[in-house]
Amino acid sequence: MQWYVVASLLTLLTSSQGILTTLSQSNGGYKYDYATVPFLAEVFKLIVSCVLLWRECQRSPPPKMTTEWRSVRLFPIPSVIYLIHNNVQFATLTYVDTSTYQIMGNLKIVTTGILFRLFLKRKLSNLQWMAIVLLAIGTTTSQVKGCGEASCESLFSSPIQGYMLGILSACLSALAGVYTEFLMKKNSDSLYWQNIQLYTFGAIFNMAKLVLDDFRSGFEKGPWWQRLLNGYTITTWMVVLNLGSTGLLVSWLMKYADNIVKVYSTSMAMLLTMVLSVFLFNFKPTLQLFLGIFVCMMSLHMYFAPPSMLVDLPVTAKAEPQSLVQVSVDRRTAS
Amino acid sequence: MQWYVVASLLTLLTSSQGILTTLSQSNGGYKYDYATVPFLAEVFKLIVSCVLLWRECQRSPPPKMTTEWRSVRLFPIPSVIYLIHNNVQFATLTYVDTSTYQIMGNLKIVTTGILFRLFLKRKLSNLQWMAIVLLAIGTTTSQVKGCGEASCESLFSSPIQGYMLGILSACLSALAGVYTEFLMKKNSDSLYWQNIQLYTFGAIFNMAKLVLDDFRSGFEKGPWWQRLLNGYTITTWMVVLNLGSTGLLVSWLMKYADNIVKVYSTSMAMLLTMVLSVFLFNFKPTLQLFLGIFVCMMSLHMYFAPPSMLVDLPVTAKAEPQSLVQVSVDRRTAS
Repeated sequence: MQWYVVASLLTLLTSSQGILTTLSQSNGGYKYDYATVPFLAEVFKLIVSCVLLWRECQRSPPPKMTTEWRSVRLFPIPSVIYLIHNNVQFATLTYVDTSTYQIMGNLKIVTTGILFRLFLKRKLSNLQWMAIVLLAIGTTTSQVKGCGEASCESLFSSPIQGYMLGILSACLSALAGVYTEFLMKKNSDSLYWQNIQLYTFGAIFNMAKLVLDDFRSGFEKGPWWQRLLNGYTITTWMVVLNLGSTGLLVSWLMKYADNIVKVYSTSMAMLLTMVLSVFLFNFKPTLQLFLGIFVCMMSLHMYFAPPSMLVDLPVTAKAEPQSLVQVSVDRRTAS
Repeated sequence: MQWYVVASLLTLLTSSQGILTTLSQSNGGYKYDYATVPFLAEVFKLIVSCVLLWRECQRSPPPKMTTEWRSVRLFPIPSVIYLIHNNVQFATLTYVDTSTYQIMGNLKIVTTGILFRLFLKRKLSNLQWMAIVLLAIGTTTSQVKGCGEASCESLFSSPIQGYMLGILSACLSALAGVYTEFLMKKNSDSLYWQNIQLYTFGAIFNMAKLVLDDFRSGFEKGPWWQRLLNGYTITTWMVVLNLGSTGLLVSWLMKYADNIVKVYSTSMAMLLTMVLSVFLFNFKPTLQLFLGIFVCMMSLHMYFAPPSMLVDLPVTAKAEPQSLVQVSVDRRTAS
């Protein structure tokens, strides 16, 4: 499979995720416990990976599987990083409002590039660095508050701790991605075997969260397994399956492509969601949305197009017709 | 002289122009007739060019000067195009509001690129085209109305004629620039001799406008030459000298550099004016101003940096330390 097919699919599914989640709400709230969704998605991914690994085991040669503890023990690390990240996220939101938080979220595009360079030792050209920065600028531009919107001017007025935590949050999110890529690529183990390790720990951490929530609320709604599917509709199940599929595609990209491809997919998904919201939820399109989309498209082309296509001057097959300008002067120095 | 020194000077002077013009107002209005400013600026440029040409004539070899009518008759054309442009501009403003007009003004960056390619047959790489589009996007981004500003949501609500005229206006403005470049480069005549021809017609056209204004107002304030310097202060003179110097620098760039360099200079000047306004006029900086500046800086680097600097991967002098990733997979195809 080509990486860009998987990346496009990830864009579509990530974009559907936002829309399905909105559709799964009734009267602006959730009738089901939202914390059960990521848990069930982990279980779904685990089942799919088990089936695929079992099929792989039927063929020859059998898939490569490292079962040593020194390898397996690395797989809970992404879950641990996400756990810390979620707490930092929560702390950030006590200092900044949600729109500032959303704007700062774009920082993770740049931090992913930096950690990708530092930890995975991957080299990027100047143009690719510029493309990554432009992607972050483009997504930020599309989110700039429109004229006449309710909450205003809060962006430069949060306490410094809010910004520091926002930066930390962007670093942790990037670190989790980069570490997962390292895990998936560190040996030639079967993707499905790696997935099983990743998702088993993922399911355990999500279950721990449900248990903790139960203790915090004093079991007033009963233990989590009794209310697991309470209020679930067909849309809620679609949210679960969609989130699970998104995760499987991300794993594939981490092994066979890289974090930057993932960042492009999810950024494009954010823009696609905004465009779809114009049609589905009567969201009013702003000028900054169009500008942001343009910047991201340019960035995409700059990052992935072959360098020669970008910098070569067009060649004329036939003789150039008599030009209006007879005197050509070197632009760089004159007089 | 290096072209980028002249271009930087043009940025500084164009930026000062906006600030000086604001400073020359008293109580939000002009005490002098603003139409006299471009006329006097043309006269100033004409005098400077005459002095410089005279100095050039003292030296040997004497400067090249084409005095044939078939060459001279081309020099009023830019003035004629600007005259049509001003009228189209006026018509546009009857359909769209000033902020939509300002946003559409950024189109001339792109039309200049197109006419530059079509009429001057200059070739640009894909990356340079992208840089030009990004420059237009960046300047537009910086002008997006902030949250909470007075007039809102008028951008997509003007009649279609307004947008058509806006596009025509952008084409005419680009055409005047491209035609001037053609005039300046069509032979190796002295720059000052070419300037004299250009500014003589410029002064005549500006004078004609003053006369026409007199007829329109029924000479109620007397003929233009009697009120030429009425209400002039030292700041007004600075506006005149600044506008004149800007024109001289543009002529130089048209001969020894090109329209794209000019477009970059004036776009950067617009951003510089906005930044200076933050300090001088307590203008409140918006997030979109910062985003726009970033996009324009990227565009500048993309257009002017040597291609090899942009696309080459960094080379490591010493042996690469043991990377975290042992298995490297080609990003483009896998599985």
